[in-house]
Amino acid sequence: MIYLDNSATTKPFSQVVEKMRLCMEEGFYNPSSLYAPALSAAGELTRARTLVSEALGGVDRVILTGSGTEADNLAILGLADGLRGRKAGFISTQVEHPAVLECMRRLQEEGHAVHLAAVHGDGEVDVDDLVSHVDDSTALVSVMQINNEVGAVQPIAEIVQRVKEKNPRTLVHVDGVQGFLRAPFQMRKLGVDLYTLSAHKIHGPKGVGALAVVGRSGLFPRTLGGGQEEGLRSGTENMPGIVGLAEAVARFQEINDAADKMFAMKKHLAEGLLAAVPEAAVNGPSLERGAPHILNVSFPVRGEVLLHALEAEGVLVSTGSACSSHKRTASHVLTAMGLPRERIEGALRFSLCPLNTPEEMDRAAQAVGRSVQALKRFKRR
Amino acid sequence: MIYLDNSATTKPFSQVVEKMRLCMEEGFYNPSSLYAPALSAAGELTRARTLVSEALGGVDRVILTGSGTEADNLAILGLADGLRGRKAGFISTQVEHPAVLECMRRLQEEGHAVHLAAVHGDGEVDVDDLVSHVDDSTALVSVMQINNEVGAVQPIAEIVQRVKEKNPRTLVHVDGVQGFLRAPFQMRKLGVDLYTLSAHKIHGPKGVGALAVVGRSGLFPRTLGGGQEEGLRSGTENMPGIVGLAEAVARFQEINDAADKMFAMKKHLAEGLLAAVPEAAVNGPSLERGAPHILNVSFPVRGEVLLHALEAEGVLVSTGSACSSHKRTASHVLTAMGLPRERIEGALRFSLCPLNTPEEMDRAAQAVGRSVQALKRFKRR
Repeated sequence: MIYLDNSATTKPFSQVVEKMRLCMEEGFYNPSSLYAPALSAAGELTRARTLVSEALGGVDRVILTGSGTEADNLAILGLADGLRGRKAGFISTQVEHPAVLECMRRLQEEGHAVHLAAVHGDGEVDVDDLVSHVDDSTALVSVMQINNEVGAVQPIAEIVQRVKEKNPRTLVHVDGVQGFLRAPFQMRKLGVDLYTLSAHKIHGPKGVGALAVVGRSGLFPRTLGGGQEEGLRSGTENMPGIVGLAEAVARFQEINDAADKMFAMKKHLAEGLLAAVPEAAVNGPSLERGAPHILNVSFPVRGEVLLHALEAEGVLVSTGSACSSHKRTASHVLTAMGLPRERIEGALRFSLCPLNTPEEMDRAAQAVGRSVQALKRFKRR
Repeated sequence: MIYLDNSATTKPFSQVVEKMRLCMEEGFYNPSSLYAPALSAAGELTRARTLVSEALGGVDRVILTGSGTEADNLAILGLADGLRGRKAGFISTQVEHPAVLECMRRLQEEGHAVHLAAVHGDGEVDVDDLVSHVDDSTALVSVMQINNEVGAVQPIAEIVQRVKEKNPRTLVHVDGVQGFLRAPFQMRKLGVDLYTLSAHKIHGPKGVGALAVVGRSGLFPRTLGGGQEEGLRSGTENMPGIVGLAEAVARFQEINDAADKMFAMKKHLAEGLLAAVPEAAVNGPSLERGAPHILNVSFPVRGEVLLHALEAEGVLVSTGSACSSHKRTASHVLTAMGLPRERIEGALRFSLCPLNTPEEMDRAAQAVGRSVQALKRFKRR
């Protein structure tokens, strides 16, 4: 089995699974309890926060959540809740994950001024369009670090600089679910206020994400109760998940040249695919500009059919993002990029992790070549 | 180590840990992906929902969440969000968990009419007070099944009947975090619309809860995004946690006479404590009326000091609920019950699980006797 759907989810590192097992068998206490074993559970929370913080160059707070989606919601809707009825401006882009887009849609319904900036043909945000909508009332700009479907790396530094030039009080949130640890990101240096990450995209477990915060955020909690996570996310902490997140962060960072390895494999895969299927076309940024681990390619057959043909060959990929794959609507990302319909329908996403191998890239490209040929023959008949 | 803090959290069953390990090592796929291995992950979601539903006598929907707290928030704030600005009445009780009380507080701030019903001296809700506040505008009544601090079993059947008699459109939510599987609960038979449960209180993992729903709830999602959980709780599903919840539900139900065993141990422990410390007094309902697994007893020394003395003897208990233990404010439950201050300050909660043994009850009672005597000597000096 060649797993090339690492942007949907990754296989947890074996050390992650082992730490989670230990946490449940030996350190199962509630970190809010008063006796010593519970204090050591509380120490695990601190360790996780510290590791995440350091990976982002040092932040003020790390709010642990149940998913990247929940962290996005806390950043956007939590900020809106903090306005207590006052209407404000919210700006994002047309190619965000639904976890951001659906929050923006609700804010619009509630009477806030929402603008979704356009993107260029390669998936990169049209920064002029975005910045032109910033005004005195703009509370938040939310832009993803790396697009989950085509791997476009957004110009966060430029966006932050130009947004804050126009309105220094506007906060900038970055959805880093596809970027965290796969591309360097120093929150404070970039001037980013809020950053979302997810454990299960970096070989940690599903069920845990985080919102990293620099400065005073003015966030309101979305989940109320016992006051965990500095009152911003109540509920007994997901200790095995959090221990798993910490371990994933530590282990991922130990991999030598993870990004370089993925980048080289991505290029190798792209070359193989283009050689095997001459009509194939890469969607999104150029191989050089794009993220190291995401490659979106259109083929002259339907993506979903090709996906299942590849599954029969032992190669697992996706047609776009897993989150919307069962909805069978055309990708909003490729649509925003202005791609023609047949190119959208023929698109597949290949997403890598540092544990993939160059040999897997060769075998995957060959499998795609065989499958496309077979499907084209079938189509002609 | 004698662990008598099972209402704070429980040790996961070994089978739960093993299933979670398998889920992460072999079935780590994203259930939203389109290939076959992902469909089997989606099957695990169905299995978890079915097991939870059957344990509650059959329900219409099981919305999986990141905690019991999140499920409480979804029930209460999700319902309020669905009113889209219209103000309504919300009724709960003075002895609820903060996950409910803090939601009620926010609704009051937002202009809804909130009433927290009084309780009797034994912790049981004053149903007359509660029902007297139901009127045409009452959207929701939220009452816990079993009180987490004193084990009072609330008269849910009577409450539902009298509330719906006054306003058939009022929904009833029951926080079953302390009750699920430890006392029988048939949602549909009782007429309960919404029910919260948590995995880590029944030897499942932390990080997963659920809201069971009968009928049309009118809930609005609190977490927006990819549309998981029928659109009511977006975010990639916590697969290891959910598999762990399912396994915990299955294994807990296999224990013969779990409630009877805990009930007998609770009585045994209470007798031992009263024999060892003649000044001790049970708080809450009579041993016969109370929950099988929760015993709250006041001693003639400070509870927190006694807790640490017992820790040194290898007995782990709590002063009240873990959620608020670090806040060091007087228990709102014992306060609502009208207990005098010294009785509140001397209170300890002993909470059992079916895996405790009668011998542990004997040893715990003896340890309490020794500790109280030592602390009283220290006090006199």
